[in-house]
Amino acid sequence: MGVLVSGQGTNLRALVRASEDPAYPARVVAVGANRVGCPALEAARQLGIPAQAFPISANSGSAVIRDSSLAAWLLQQGCELLVLAGYDRILTAPLIDAFPERILNIHNSLLPSFAGTMRAVEEALEYGVKITGCTVHLVDAKRVDGGPIVLQAAVRVEDDDTPNSLLERIHQEEWRILPEAVGLVASGRLRVEGRVVRSVHR
Amino acid sequence: MGVLVSGQGTNLRALVRASEDPAYPARVVAVGANRVGCPALEAARQLGIPAQAFPISANSGSAVIRDSSLAAWLLQQGCELLVLAGYDRILTAPLIDAFPERILNIHNSLLPSFAGTMRAVEEALEYGVKITGCTVHLVDAKRVDGGPIVLQAAVRVEDDDTPNSLLERIHQEEWRILPEAVGLVASGRLRVEGRVVRSVHR
Repeated sequence: MGVLVSGQGTNLRALVRASEDPAYPARVVAVGANRVGCPALEAARQLGIPAQAFPISANSGSAVIRDSSLAAWLLQQGCELLVLAGYDRILTAPLIDAFPERILNIHNSLLPSFAGTMRAVEEALEYGVKITGCTVHLVDAKRVDGGPIVLQAAVRVEDDDTPNSLLERIHQEEWRILPEAVGLVASGRLRVEGRVVRSVHR
Repeated sequence: MGVLVSGQGTNLRALVRASEDPAYPARVVAVGANRVGCPALEAARQLGIPAQAFPISANSGSAVIRDSSLAAWLLQQGCELLVLAGYDRILTAPLIDAFPERILNIHNSLLPSFAGTMRAVEEALEYGVKITGCTVHLVDAKRVDGGPIVLQAAVRVEDDDTPNSLLERIHQEEWRILPEAVGLVASGRLRVEGRVVRSVHR
């Protein structure tokens, strides 16, 4: 798999940890970022994984051009599956077309609640929900956070939660379900029917 | 409490069961329905609880007129709190004004997902969520299913779930959290801050 990152790389580490098990059906072979110097890139390099930033510079132009280079590089590295692990950019056609039905994203809410926002944890607290969580879904071209759902995990909201304390517990669940979802997709054990994802073997 | 029903009365039974505990801070003193002959009304009568239907007939007019009569009758019976237990009508002003911040509703989804629909369980399955559940919330005049949330419970969706099998597991959780939420409100142990509900004592 290729992994796209923007931040600290904690989900990336969870994927690398999972793939240390010889029985796990995928390996991280490339890490891309939209920013030079993001900590996750440095973490990837320290783990010996090819890692590269693809910023949009004043003269290199648009997101589409960036995504073309990124897609070409990921394919060159041997990626057959793409995981967005806290990647904060919307993908354009060249990337989506390079990995048809093979792109996974993680969102820190129980979709469809709090879709399409980078502030999902804050918005859940402001709304006053008592249960939130996280969602791993396939990325489709139509809607941000709208693709078929692979796995979800629920997290209880406590009365004294701050965005940070709640996010920390959601992260714990993300580090569990993201590698699990990647394993299901990589081993071909999922069937996508319209927008419903089912297991082939139980 | 007064309880409004439209269907089988299983949530009503859960409330009556809870109130058999002497330590429980509320009792069911009246059951109203929008339909003559709904099974929940008959169940209430068998339990010895004053029960009455308030249908809208051709010559008795509107939902507002119905809700005025219903509110007057509930207050006469001594209700201080109103619980919508599978009541499938939207309340109008006379009822909402009679029980300010003292009306609880239960919805069979994890709000804000699948709000404002009677088909929340079907829609959750069609959307392909892996976790759904139920929500007890205060009713406010502004939005259907939009009031401050008191309690939620999560229910896992299984690959082979039908609307009926999923609804059955959601019901189990409803019968648990609805009496619990009523107990919290009746004992004055909740504080509503904007749209966030917190416990006063833990």
